Amino acid sequence: LLIALDWGTSSLRAWLLDATGAIAATRSAALGIMHISDARFEAAFLEVCGDWIEAHAGIRVIASGMVGSRQGWHEAPYVACPAAIEDLIGALLRFTTRDRTEIAIVPGVVLRTVVPDVMRGEETQVFGALSAEFDGVLVLPGTHSKWVRVRRGRIESFVTFMTGELFSVLREHSILGRLMEVGRFDEEAFLRGVDAGVAPGGIAAKLFAVRTLGLFAEVAASGLDSYLSGLLIGDELAEGRRRFAFEAGLPPALVGEPVLMDRYRRAFARLGVTVATADTASAVRGLWRIAVAAQLV
Amino acid sequence: LLIALDWGTSSLRAWLLDATGAIAATRSAALGIMHISDARFEAAFLEVCGDWIEAHAGIRVIASGMVGSRQGWHEAPYVACPAAIEDLIGALLRFTTRDRTEIAIVPGVVLRTVVPDVMRGEETQVFGALSAEFDGVLVLPGTHSKWVRVRRGRIESFVTFMTGELFSVLREHSILGRLMEVGRFDEEAFLRGVDAGVAPGGIAAKLFAVRTLGLFAEVAASGLDSYLSGLLIGDELAEGRRRFAFEAGLPPALVGEPVLMDRYRRAFARLGVTVATADTASAVRGLWRIAVAAQLV
Repeated sequence: LLIALDWGTSSLRAWLLDATGAIAATRSAALGIMHISDARFEAAFLEVCGDWIEAHAGIRVIASGMVGSRQGWHEAPYVACPAAIEDLIGALLRFTTRDRTEIAIVPGVVLRTVVPDVMRGEETQVFGALSAEFDGVLVLPGTHSKWVRVRRGRIESFVTFMTGELFSVLREHSILGRLMEVGRFDEEAFLRGVDAGVAPGGIAAKLFAVRTLGLFAEVAASGLDSYLSGLLIGDELAEGRRRFAFEAGLPPALVGEPVLMDRYRRAFARLGVTVATADTASAVRGLWRIAVAAQLV
Repeated sequence: LLIALDWGTSSLRAWLLDATGAIAATRSAALGIMHISDARFEAAFLEVCGDWIEAHAGIRVIASGMVGSRQGWHEAPYVACPAAIEDLIGALLRFTTRDRTEIAIVPGVVLRTVVPDVMRGEETQVFGALSAEFDGVLVLPGTHSKWVRVRRGRIESFVTFMTGELFSVLREHSILGRLMEVGRFDEEAFLRGVDAGVAPGGIAAKLFAVRTLGLFAEVAASGLDSYLSGLLIGDELAEGRRRFAFEAGLPPALVGEPVLMDRYRRAFARLGVTVATADTASAVRGLWRIAVAAQLV
């Protein structure tokens, strides 16, 4: 038996796994690390998983995500690229709660180039999504999208795009949100945005179009958020293609939430690229795989 | 005598000009159009300029900026590129207030390419800053930076960069602001950001460095906002250079506020480009020039 936690910036997802790794129960709470003050991590954990702990004496816990960051429960180290699953296991941060539950936090991964880049949580999704023979680029869309180059079962390099967070802050806090009406996903506006995003030139000079296309009614107010979404995803894809050259025989594969994966799949298709999509259980499968290899179960 | 208004998104600046165009009095208020509801423009105007109106019966008023936008007092049209000062004068929006003051709002300028681009207020600064023989690129840093190609006294084309607004929303509302401590301008961090911004590749994959450089203490917390500023300005300069090829004999000239112009001057110098700087009175000089040519005085 194992409790697996995907504990990120905005939410905590918890699974109770049986001896075969099958999911016995799932819980989710808006108790991401940004919503928790320093001393409250244990209380938040017990709020979500306390009855599992009581029901199964001695059950082990494994966690990944921002819970291991400096703003998290306990700071876990970063493992350097290239990083294999064994490297993660060797650097698990283990501690015991006041009620003697043993917890292991999966380390993050750091890539040191001109500037460092880091991930926390995505490394676990990567190892949950990987088939043994996968050689290529995994794309994990999200607040901070990660493009991860995997070779021979190791995370060789990666890059972070702030696509999701740019979308939120621009929509909620910039003038671009002013003309927007909340609408359904507008595929035509989205694809027009993708086309603009992949066209040559930087994003800073393209963003203002979200306002002007609205001003001149070239895109309906209800489609402007889809246009912005397409613009930012298109920009990400163009830059990702430049960095990872996936047209040269490296098939990109998507890992993440269905709604986001669907948008990325449409954008990739616009570039003529067919992508594989992993299922959405990569986090829990990665946690299980690490726990087994680390002999926590 | 003339009242000249530079009425933008966040503030209203007003000048009382004598018969020679010299500044007799200056006022400024945080009464930008974002702070004013529909019916309150006339009241805001009178709050700032009411005593000038009373003291000088029949005085004319000229205004430029977002006051002429759809969210402003009265919507002024857009003049298409290429736009000469005569085109602006021909499209002045004239109206009379309830107390019979005659007001003229300078039109904006639109460039129609694949997507439209617009300016309101900057066209007036351009014509205030221009010497008759100027042929080149004017750079107006700000919330929405404008790069304006001027030839034979006309605005031939331009492009908008959302540099200033990106800086604010990322600093105030994204994870990048989390590690920042408000500090003085840090030139070393700024120039490191400029170098990263002008390097190949899009900005979306470079922004996360503002967090990681802080996490690994490669840039002090007090320098992270300077780094972000340099990164965004560097990105703008690289894209502006690509679009306007100013190394090919087109000298860029800066028009704007001293603090921002100083940052841009340092960033241009980092690229080996020496820029001219206009004085900061281009708005009021442009308003005067347009008013004279339109025979408002």
